[in-house]
Amino acid sequence: MVGESLWQVLQTNRSLNSEIKKVCIKHADKPRNAPAGLFTTVPNEILKDRDINVVVELIDDADAAHNIVTYALRSGKAVVSANKKMIAEHLPELLKLQSETGTPFLYEAACCASIPVIRNLEEYYDNDLLQSISGIVNGSTNYILTKIADEHLDYATALKQAQDKGYAESNPALDVEGIDAVNKLTILLAHAYGIVSAPNKILHTGIHNLHAQDARYAREKGYAIKLVAHAHKQEDGKVAAFVLPQFLTADNQLANVKNEYNGVIIESGLADKQLFNGKGAGGFPTASAVISDLSALRYNYRYEYKKCYYQEPSLLADDLYLRVYISYDAHYKIAHGLLERIDEWTRNGQRCSLTGTIHCSRLARGDWWKHDGVSLILLPEPFDLAPAPSLPERVIDVCAVAQ
Amino acid sequence: MVGESLWQVLQTNRSLNSEIKKVCIKHADKPRNAPAGLFTTVPNEILKDRDINVVVELIDDADAAHNIVTYALRSGKAVVSANKKMIAEHLPELLKLQSETGTPFLYEAACCASIPVIRNLEEYYDNDLLQSISGIVNGSTNYILTKIADEHLDYATALKQAQDKGYAESNPALDVEGIDAVNKLTILLAHAYGIVSAPNKILHTGIHNLHAQDARYAREKGYAIKLVAHAHKQEDGKVAAFVLPQFLTADNQLANVKNEYNGVIIESGLADKQLFNGKGAGGFPTASAVISDLSALRYNYRYEYKKCYYQEPSLLADDLYLRVYISYDAHYKIAHGLLERIDEWTRNGQRCSLTGTIHCSRLARGDWWKHDGVSLILLPEPFDLAPAPSLPERVIDVCAVAQ
Repeated sequence: MVGESLWQVLQTNRSLNSEIKKVCIKHADKPRNAPAGLFTTVPNEILKDRDINVVVELIDDADAAHNIVTYALRSGKAVVSANKKMIAEHLPELLKLQSETGTPFLYEAACCASIPVIRNLEEYYDNDLLQSISGIVNGSTNYILTKIADEHLDYATALKQAQDKGYAESNPALDVEGIDAVNKLTILLAHAYGIVSAPNKILHTGIHNLHAQDARYAREKGYAIKLVAHAHKQEDGKVAAFVLPQFLTADNQLANVKNEYNGVIIESGLADKQLFNGKGAGGFPTASAVISDLSALRYNYRYEYKKCYYQEPSLLADDLYLRVYISYDAHYKIAHGLLERIDEWTRNGQRCSLTGTIHCSRLARGDWWKHDGVSLILLPEPFDLAPAPSLPERVIDVCAVAQ
Repeated sequence: MVGESLWQVLQTNRSLNSEIKKVCIKHADKPRNAPAGLFTTVPNEILKDRDINVVVELIDDADAAHNIVTYALRSGKAVVSANKKMIAEHLPELLKLQSETGTPFLYEAACCASIPVIRNLEEYYDNDLLQSISGIVNGSTNYILTKIADEHLDYATALKQAQDKGYAESNPALDVEGIDAVNKLTILLAHAYGIVSAPNKILHTGIHNLHAQDARYAREKGYAIKLVAHAHKQEDGKVAAFVLPQFLTADNQLANVKNEYNGVIIESGLADKQLFNGKGAGGFPTASAVISDLSALRYNYRYEYKKCYYQEPSLLADDLYLRVYISYDAHYKIAHGLLERIDEWTRNGQRCSLTGTIHCSRLARGDWWKHDGVSLILLPEPFDLAPAPSLPERVIDVCAVAQ
């Protein structure tokens, strides 16, 4: 779909001065809206063609994409990609390859589709005053969350609608479990803070365990629930980073980013908060970013990875207290001492919920909070610098059963 | 204020690797928060110092700024400026000077302070798919309009508050008459469409004639009133551009840009609408853009003015029907035939108001609509492609008196 959008645009707009010479496809017998002579199923017809100087990689299969991209870069062909999974998982190798070959590798479409967030982090927020980035970076989950909030749909129905609209894959795990979002955050961290991390080292979950009671709680409090990818620089210079669902108050600009839209708030020491808001999914928005990358190649643009190479790269923080809401089926037990502090605890039929403060290491060490029947959502003010003592023992005892 | 913010930042953040060698000031006896040896009142101490390779121009006086900037560029010193008035009024000359000298001249701070709109128009939206830009580009007027709407203040009181807060000058004409906004639009037009126009050739007004009845009308209809700088590409390839107050419905993202904030919606054929939202005024936000420009100079960045030089520059449109609301003191008369079409006309005590369609040439040719006692505001859907016949003669006759 992105490929076809790209083809259409290059046909009708000549300012790019680019021509598609060959398109490698997987299914030769699928009907296509372009001349048959353009297509091949053999990647080497592109990779070994010396007349082709740019390879645009827009395929689903991350392993095949990795092979294509590394081969193309090694052959001196510039590459434009939208494959966040492949890029996030192979970031160290892809950085090394770019250093060695000097060949440009651009991938603006890999984060927030049409929103130029990578380019701005790299070029505009290129000094050490960047305080935080906070974003809704996955259109599918945002569409589902919007339907749950605005139309009171249950999770399964909202997911089905997202699939019918083409916003979610038939296997939606990458989206709803927060994997797509953490892949994007991995890429953003490199351009924002020079951090090159494996995505699975970053605290993350999705919205797949969201319970109807959580949605009711949000409505009662006037909160929106959003899946937020977040990173901020701590006082000690380390960077706290995670992808977690979060309750947002109405005055948080991300609360108004709805449906398949993405939004990123970039906060700097001088400029305060800046919101970038636009379509985060779909063929044309993705093609839009691909075209801007193609256009940048004409002027020999390449990412310098300034925060990685020209500044002291930051480290990921491992000491952080998070203020959380946890709801869970009543047959679960939350272990005594797991939370630093519990502020509220209630039981409503077969569902319990609590709010309190937890150390991030409690989440990094186990996955109890991702189990079926457990839902963890950040509170609107999610950071607790110095957790005060908990509620009286009487309340703690209610949930003081070993996990 | 911007200068002092810049000084503070460069003192505490070393990643820029820049040092301020000399600061030229107007008033030698004003107390300053920096070492006295840094200051001079003689511009030539900077301009003729061969060790200085970048001049940052942050002064109020547009004529003095023009002399400094042209001298510096001719001497091969890169220049960073925030002086939208000077840039807009001398744009053709400044483009020529950059072509001749090859010296970089960056001015991101001149439009929307901290929001990187110029850089994105130049680099990211660099193809011919850019459909429109629509923005709130003046923080002072937006602060005043927000106070009128949200706190029901009258115009004079809101203006006074803006002045007390430092958002408006003691002589606020540049802001409230739309001159600052049209200067910014002039700059944006060059980077968006390759149009190099004098600001006074672009249709513009401000909010100085806004009447209490207009604010009431907006409230009743659920509209926000905003001063909008707008440009869009017409079917014929020409670009319609203006700065006018406009009624916005709540679903227009600009309606939620409040107080001193700026917001720009960039619409492209592929990416649909993208909103950039951030602080548009103040010392630190402006310093933020200046620092990003300084930083870009380290990597030899300069504006290429791609739409001017590498593409066919667009022309300003002169054939456009606008849907307007006009309110006016009852002793004024709106001439018969001035509007293509009148949809509604009402008289409320000493104030009349109408809605209808007017050809832009009617506004370009005269300034009756900027007179005291006349207020013209665009309707939420401001374009009328084919004006239908007017209301019956009976209604037209009410205002059928020569102007």
